[in-house]
Amino acid sequence: MGFIEEVRTFLGNYAITRKEDLIPYMNDASYFTGEMPEAVLLPGSPEDVQRIMKLAYKYEVPVVVRGGGSSLTGSSILKNEGIVISMLRMNHIIDLNLNDKCVVAEPGVRLDDLERFLDKYGHFYPPDPASSRSATVGGSISTNAGGLRGVAYGVTKDWVLGLEVVLADGTLVKFGNKALKRSMGYDMTALMIGSEGTLGIITKAYLKIWPKPERIARILAFFRTIDDAGNAISEVKERIIPEMAEFMDKISLDSVPDAIKYPEGTNYALIVDASGPPETLQRRREQIEGILKKYAIETRSTTDKAEMNRIYLARKGLYASILRLRKSEKEYIVIGDIVVPVSELPSALKEIEKARDVDGVRCALFGHIGDGNIHANIFADLSNEEAMAKVNKFMMDMAMISVRHGGSVSAEHGIGLEKKKLFVEEMRFHDNMRTLDLMRSIKRIFDPKNILNRGNIFDQDAGSDS
Amino acid sequence: MGFIEEVRTFLGNYAITRKEDLIPYMNDASYFTGEMPEAVLLPGSPEDVQRIMKLAYKYEVPVVVRGGGSSLTGSSILKNEGIVISMLRMNHIIDLNLNDKCVVAEPGVRLDDLERFLDKYGHFYPPDPASSRSATVGGSISTNAGGLRGVAYGVTKDWVLGLEVVLADGTLVKFGNKALKRSMGYDMTALMIGSEGTLGIITKAYLKIWPKPERIARILAFFRTIDDAGNAISEVKERIIPEMAEFMDKISLDSVPDAIKYPEGTNYALIVDASGPPETLQRRREQIEGILKKYAIETRSTTDKAEMNRIYLARKGLYASILRLRKSEKEYIVIGDIVVPVSELPSALKEIEKARDVDGVRCALFGHIGDGNIHANIFADLSNEEAMAKVNKFMMDMAMISVRHGGSVSAEHGIGLEKKKLFVEEMRFHDNMRTLDLMRSIKRIFDPKNILNRGNIFDQDAGSDS
Repeated sequence: MGFIEEVRTFLGNYAITRKEDLIPYMNDASYFTGEMPEAVLLPGSPEDVQRIMKLAYKYEVPVVVRGGGSSLTGSSILKNEGIVISMLRMNHIIDLNLNDKCVVAEPGVRLDDLERFLDKYGHFYPPDPASSRSATVGGSISTNAGGLRGVAYGVTKDWVLGLEVVLADGTLVKFGNKALKRSMGYDMTALMIGSEGTLGIITKAYLKIWPKPERIARILAFFRTIDDAGNAISEVKERIIPEMAEFMDKISLDSVPDAIKYPEGTNYALIVDASGPPETLQRRREQIEGILKKYAIETRSTTDKAEMNRIYLARKGLYASILRLRKSEKEYIVIGDIVVPVSELPSALKEIEKARDVDGVRCALFGHIGDGNIHANIFADLSNEEAMAKVNKFMMDMAMISVRHGGSVSAEHGIGLEKKKLFVEEMRFHDNMRTLDLMRSIKRIFDPKNILNRGNIFDQDAGSDS
Repeated sequence: MGFIEEVRTFLGNYAITRKEDLIPYMNDASYFTGEMPEAVLLPGSPEDVQRIMKLAYKYEVPVVVRGGGSSLTGSSILKNEGIVISMLRMNHIIDLNLNDKCVVAEPGVRLDDLERFLDKYGHFYPPDPASSRSATVGGSISTNAGGLRGVAYGVTKDWVLGLEVVLADGTLVKFGNKALKRSMGYDMTALMIGSEGTLGIITKAYLKIWPKPERIARILAFFRTIDDAGNAISEVKERIIPEMAEFMDKISLDSVPDAIKYPEGTNYALIVDASGPPETLQRRREQIEGILKKYAIETRSTTDKAEMNRIYLARKGLYASILRLRKSEKEYIVIGDIVVPVSELPSALKEIEKARDVDGVRCALFGHIGDGNIHANIFADLSNEEAMAKVNKFMMDMAMISVRHGGSVSAEHGIGLEKKKLFVEEMRFHDNMRTLDLMRSIKRIFDPKNILNRGNIFDQDAGSDS
């Protein structure tokens, strides 16, 4: 018996091998197309995952683990022959304890489903990537996902208490547990977070949860210049932690004309949430709006739930709405995801806009400005070599702008296939190639046969960096 | 020239070798006595650290790095021949930016000095171990220190954005930076946190800071039974995140008679802080006090700064005040530091008390009950073998109680020398010895000659686990 035959003995019909069923797994939300997998396996339990990996290890079958497939960098597609393991059957919420502030979930639970579940108890799990409708617990842990609530609550790494993980050879290990703190040798939980499926397969997650804010007010502010928008958010953050602080440029605004109407002269907008107990909300709202007014053409604010939701969904849906602004069906979207310290935003954003114009690309700029994270959705005709050269030039320019301003080339989407070169350039800029060596060595410990998401983040051969 | 002679060429008098000057470095705040170091080196810069480590690597000299020497587990003493590197000269705050919510500090900065510095700007760095007067930035990162603010703000791992680190061979690497988020391969910053000086030497830290809460009210509640205290905090946490939630038993209370007077019948007390904007504080205080009242003999609360400070310092000074209750000069204090999920507190605490009585040891129980972390300060005559056998039995009993209740044997003090056996037992209980193997392999990558804090956390030889 070969690998597939052996797997079928316990997975049965959950081992998919019909070609037409495999095609959807060649793509994720990035513009990359991966290899056709030999099979897609849908384990239903940690034991299934162990049995699959024992066989994959024995037969040296490369494996890509996939949650919602919402990776924007090609993390969840096969880079070479092999199989895909989809975690979507393992989608149960196992336990909730409000006293412990902990929810235990399987990796395939979608973040929006988790949100709806926790909402009934007045709680939430803060990581909130825009893709939360499809993104899963496991996938968002694997990229250290951020999202719209990062400015107030940090990122995924701040909310994962423990993980159960199946290693490349099928061994099940336990990194952490429900306890809120631990000083127990190396933080293996943290090592898994952001490792994009290259170190092990998450089969269970202990997540920290938090009570929902009592009240929220949503403030919109419209600006003429990037300086005004950058300085406004920088001044807000000096004094107050907003519940949310999002940025949109004119192209982004034009993609959601029904949700957000802007005054003449607007080139940029901020969406800033004030939060707090009912007695405080009005003061906090005036405080934030007061700062924004100093720089803005106009500000408005609301506590109307429907209106707040309309604005929120417009921002969260930008990836899709910007797609509608494509000039042709052939255009894809290439997504930049840089981060700089908040104080560097005005100057970094100005340089990015300049680079965009010099490089001659069309793109929308928006993002989680409250924690310094800017996305650039670049329109790109993949079949046009000259145009793609411009796109790649702009991606590199934007990366180096973020690095020179003390930031990083990937804030929350991971490296995947897309940012491997940018990742190396950031390391090189800081004379920090040894760090890349250390990561390669760690990968070899966890996955000596290099079967877990091979070719993702970096190649095992250091010669590939040049 | 030998190691010391070569080091002296650039460190001069900052290479200490006089025996009487070396003696203080044989001890830290634990009850262990280490080896006499061959020298104590005080580098003044990352370059000094690099030059020292290049030589230590060449000569294979074991090295222990030491901050304030406040380790309670023997992390900062030499387990064999070698040298101590004291980071206390590198005690400068390098940069502060309120917009970025980031302070950049050298590792030797004491946490209380950092607190005073940030306080001028209305901000703070949340990790707050009781030893903050002597504990340093570097040392507290190395044990993933928690402290009194953990219930609301998490632990050190949630507040370190980036680190500059000198590796065992003297290479300087940069893990992270000032940016608030990052998805850039493996989280090497997180790997350093809690690694107790075994992976590298921290030479610079980028720390996230936060605005201070606007107002605080401090509530004292006194209880007859451990059930009442445990259930009270569990119910508070179900609904509200307090700013602080500390626990003291009667022995602890009796060690600070001037600071906290308790009503008759008291066996346990809680100190719970309500926080919030001025408009909300009274409601929040009443909410929390209302829950506590349901279980308590008596509650009191105050917003008087002097009184709040008196209570806070009494709690923070328990290690010293409990020392005064020793029956003889020969008695030391052995400290347990376990954590369980908050909902398990009532039953776990009851079992711990029972084990204490069965094992026949005298100890004070107190701790950061809000995040499930309990300390047991055990009176121990190190010279009395029979008594020490009881102490060790109780330490193991307490460890296994925490593990059975879903917790861990070390919450915030690290493993050091003291908890190596308990650490292995926790791994064994969960059939999780492979995790220990992974940690050993990571250690070998970072420190192939095993010169950094050799024998701390675990021994490199897996045979030592049995």
